Amino acid sequence: MDKGLQAFIDKLNTLSFGNMYENDFYFTWDKTDDELAAVFTVADALRYMREQNISTKIFDSGLGISIFRDNSTRTRFSFASACNLLGLEVQDLDEKKSQIAHGETVRETANMVSFMADVIGIRDDMYIGKGHTYQKTVVDAVTQGYHDGILEQKPTLVNLQCDVDHPTQCMADMEEIIHYFGGVENLKGKKLAMTWAYSPSYGKPLSVPQGVIGLMTRFGMDVVLAHPEGYDVFPECEEIARKNAAKSGGSFTKTNSMAEAFKDADIVYPKSWAPFAAMEKRTELYGNGDFDGIDALEKELLAQNAEHKDWTCSEELMKTTKDGKALYLHCLPADISGVSCEQGEVDASVFERYIDPLYKEASYKPYIIAAMIFLAKCKNPQETLKKLAERNQPRLFQ
Amino acid sequence: MDKGLQAFIDKLNTLSFGNMYENDFYFTWDKTDDELAAVFTVADALRYMREQNISTKIFDSGLGISIFRDNSTRTRFSFASACNLLGLEVQDLDEKKSQIAHGETVRETANMVSFMADVIGIRDDMYIGKGHTYQKTVVDAVTQGYHDGILEQKPTLVNLQCDVDHPTQCMADMEEIIHYFGGVENLKGKKLAMTWAYSPSYGKPLSVPQGVIGLMTRFGMDVVLAHPEGYDVFPECEEIARKNAAKSGGSFTKTNSMAEAFKDADIVYPKSWAPFAAMEKRTELYGNGDFDGIDALEKELLAQNAEHKDWTCSEELMKTTKDGKALYLHCLPADISGVSCEQGEVDASVFERYIDPLYKEASYKPYIIAAMIFLAKCKNPQETLKKLAERNQPRLFQ
Amino acid sequence: MDKGLQAFIDKLNTLSFGNMYENDFYFTWDKTDDELAAVFTVADALRYMREQNISTKIFDSGLGISIFRDNSTRTRFSFASACNLLGLEVQDLDEKKSQIAHGETVRETANMVSFMADVIGIRDDMYIGKGHTYQKTVVDAVTQGYHDGILEQKPTLVNLQCDVDHPTQCMADMEEIIHYFGGVENLKGKKLAMTWAYSPSYGKPLSVPQGVIGLMTRFGMDVVLAHPEGYDVFPECEEIARKNAAKSGGSFTKTNSMAEAFKDADIVYPKSWAPFAAMEKRTELYGNGDFDGIDALEKELLAQNAEHKDWTCSEELMKTTKDGKALYLHCLPADISGVSCEQGEVDASVFERYIDPLYKEASYKPYIIAAMIFLAKCKNPQETLKKLAERNQPRLFQ
Repeated sequence: MDKGLQAFIDKLNTLSFGNMYENDFYFTWDKTDDELAAVFTVADALRYMREQNISTKIFDSGLGISIFRDNSTRTRFSFASACNLLGLEVQDLDEKKSQIAHGETVRETANMVSFMADVIGIRDDMYIGKGHTYQKTVVDAVTQGYHDGILEQKPTLVNLQCDVDHPTQCMADMEEIIHYFGGVENLKGKKLAMTWAYSPSYGKPLSVPQGVIGLMTRFGMDVVLAHPEGYDVFPECEEIARKNAAKSGGSFTKTNSMAEAFKDADIVYPKSWAPFAAMEKRTELYGNGDFDGIDALEKELLAQNAEHKDWTCSEELMKTTKDGKALYLHCLPADISGVSCEQGEVDASVFERYIDPLYKEASYKPYIIAAMIFLAKCKNPQETLKKLAERNQPRLFQ
Repeated sequence: MDKGLQAFIDKLNTLSFGNMYENDFYFTWDKTDDELAAVFTVADALRYMREQNISTKIFDSGLGISIFRDNSTRTRFSFASACNLLGLEVQDLDEKKSQIAHGETVRETANMVSFMADVIGIRDDMYIGKGHTYQKTVVDAVTQGYHDGILEQKPTLVNLQCDVDHPTQCMADMEEIIHYFGGVENLKGKKLAMTWAYSPSYGKPLSVPQGVIGLMTRFGMDVVLAHPEGYDVFPECEEIARKNAAKSGGSFTKTNSMAEAFKDADIVYPKSWAPFAAMEKRTELYGNGDFDGIDALEKELLAQNAEHKDWTCSEELMKTTKDGKALYLHCLPADISGVSCEQGEVDASVFERYIDPLYKEASYKPYIIAAMIFLAKCKNPQETLKKLAERNQPRLFQ
Repeated sequence: MDKGLQAFIDKLNTLSFGNMYENDFYFTWDKTDDELAAVFTVADALRYMREQNISTKIFDSGLGISIFRDNSTRTRFSFASACNLLGLEVQDLDEKKSQIAHGETVRETANMVSFMADVIGIRDDMYIGKGHTYQKTVVDAVTQGYHDGILEQKPTLVNLQCDVDHPTQCMADMEEIIHYFGGVENLKGKKLAMTWAYSPSYGKPLSVPQGVIGLMTRFGMDVVLAHPEGYDVFPECEEIARKNAAKSGGSFTKTNSMAEAFKDADIVYPKSWAPFAAMEKRTELYGNGDFDGIDALEKELLAQNAEHKDWTCSEELMKTTKDGKALYLHCLPADISGVSCEQGEVDASVFERYIDPLYKEASYKPYIIAAMIFLAKCKNPQETLKKLAERNQPRLFQ
């Protein structure tokens, strides 16, 4: 047995994650520390095997259904890559091309597309209280379909971003942190600043900051959430972050000063988002079909954003971080001052300097998704990894 | 050899279906009883093997081309699932994204997309006299292309719904009936009511009722076609139903009373469709580019429909069926009163009670399509099934 | 070893093409004669193996990314077929469905979609000076991404048509010529007429005539470029053609007379394109967002075209070719007089008589693309072909 792969299997043998089998992935905080560690480990193992030109195709046939209720490039290609790596063919449910009758139940659509679906990936992040609910409705429907003998397998949900969490993104971010700092054991006491930043666009989802504080507080780091007054995130997510920090021996604090958050930070994650209260109001207006109200709200929010143009990841601020060299993270695409907009979340020179770690951060997402699927589908993941190594099928036959 | 699979092979050995090899599937009435029995048997065999985690991938590469000239969810995913199960990758010919020149011949497009196509699935059901003609033009083109040495293989057509028949739907419906009643031998003398039902939408295709009466009359059942005056289907299809019934020892009758159709029925299939004469007029208006005329016709038809709101599958009507428990069928999505519309084809409580058989009915479609492809591509399907069992490649490698 | 396949391997053994490994395909004139011969030979070998039902799937997983900045049917399906034949799954980057931020760099998008991409196929042919530049920017980005350890493999670019060349088309055209005349050794002294032809549409890309004169002048043929005054192509491409002809012992000449070009020609390629100068002006107007200017230019160009309605491939002109039987080529779709337009590039009877060679010509494109990928991915293509023959995996398992 290849030693590199054996190390991943050994690591898995120390973890307890049996509950992930045939389960779904909504939120990182639904999962135990061991379960998250299993995801990171399997992601690394799959990447390692691909680099060794060993196929990790466990499915000979089967579909990965994607439902993107928002536009997406990164996540769409990450999901497609993950499915392909494991042998699933992506079939996109494009709601515009579909004959989904007015009033057709989600239960029906979910079952109709799932007869041969092993995975369903959903992105639905636009309206507060909607995205997660939709994902749960889909999962409940296919779980019942499976129990009632309609479906031959229970498709596994992978949350590709909802209104609450963005677990595949945040776990990719986290894997970058782990690798950058040489291991999860080196993170205790590191300071991470999740801060709001100005962007000329409006209504960006809250799921990234929420996902970040809900996940990053589990590793003993000092996590600071910074935003201008009024840009609060879900109180439930702050509560989760607080509990995580207490348990992990780190801390979770809040501030209304970007400078305070950046000071001596080891990691900074400056990113725009919409205020929670405004998003709630928007959801309500949308529910009432009040599109004039939505337009008015949009203008109001843009004006409100514009009062905080000083919230930007400048070279000056970067200098105040630990040794002036904090790791800069972003889920991409970033609003880069002078490149994608006049004034945005980050100085062009800062962004440019961090291109490699930023792209590397993004490169983990396909593997994180593949690991989530792998752990939900393999009864004994260690055994399957071993058998894949023994099968030794080349990814590229030469 | 696994006994379950052997039973399917034994069954196939009693049937004569050699003519399906390298052939197409337009209408069920083009096919002999043995040929239809072969489709049902192979569909069951493929499902059985998938349930046993045995791969039925017969294609190592190859494309399944889909052409949806109408929106579709169920059929799109059924076709994708069937192709994937056998190893074909679906490539959709989206006529909006394609550079199909004004006036480009169907012959040319058909050949251009078929260089590596093993299957072409087409849905084209909107205009009387158009859908089948289009499918036939495509088949003629690729058949000639194959004979002329342009194409290395003749792609097989699977009719995914035309203006005349909807064979993959009706055969899935039929497979539900067969399994529900414990075998085709138990169907003699059963009463099946194919009846029109009110829906607030207009212009639904006639291919489902036509396909149902054209297929279900072949099993010795008493098939009743019920609709309000003026909602006739193609006379040719009624003629086929009549002949089938005479041959199979069943009956085919017509009535203008939904109550009469439902009385003591073992199976009911209440569904809206547009009157044949109106659809013909619509096709003519469309041909003349008379869109005002089409709008006027639409209003007229909706008003005409509204005179028959009492044609609905109510709890009261269901009580009049055999033991009050007829099997309720629908191709989905149904117009459910109080759910998808104020008043529609079926009471919500009736629909809800039959969710499991309805979804099961839909679940046969991918296997029916896969069986059609399998029978068109395998010279000796029994032998191929046996070899697949011997190959014993797992669908999910663990 | 199968003798047919051995002949292709023997042929490859006489050629030097090591530089194609891990390289890209922009223009035919970037490649040596041996390299082009290798593409033709591998294309034929792959086709031969498919005809023998031997799988040529070298990828067990991996993506082929397609980016179509113009509509496409033929090229889209050719690329999909080629990828599928080798085992890659196509994932289309639909820029309309993607979350590509305003101002997001091509560098970023290119890397984000390429984590598991082995190939990127791009069609971008609308604006002078843009298409090739875009392709080069993508290649530079992923090459850097690969060197920086972001990407685990360098995706290979296949130019599916840019503003300068259309190599997959022209090499398919060339393969038709080679097979039609029984070998490349029979082409010396043959006369090929690449001529402009009238079409009621406007703004057709110049990459086909440019690609044709840039490629066809390499085989000792007498290539004539004919067009009305003002319909010049890129001077750089004419220069390449001139040099090629000198080197290959053929000739490259220009004329403003279609009749002169057709006279005694062995091969004719009559096709509409826009004047280079007009296309440059259009690009400038587009850059300035001057859409009124573009409309005015369009009208002007259509009027200019209409002065040359006599530039059409008529039966009369065909009679003047060698024995009245020149091989008629077109990249399709053609503007056929009386079929797709009132008056167009070619008489219906001429087009009809050449259907088989025309469709055959198109049928080479998937194999040309597959060969380009194969040569960029296999370190020792001869060895891989041999191993594929030994593996002897059936494409269709029976």
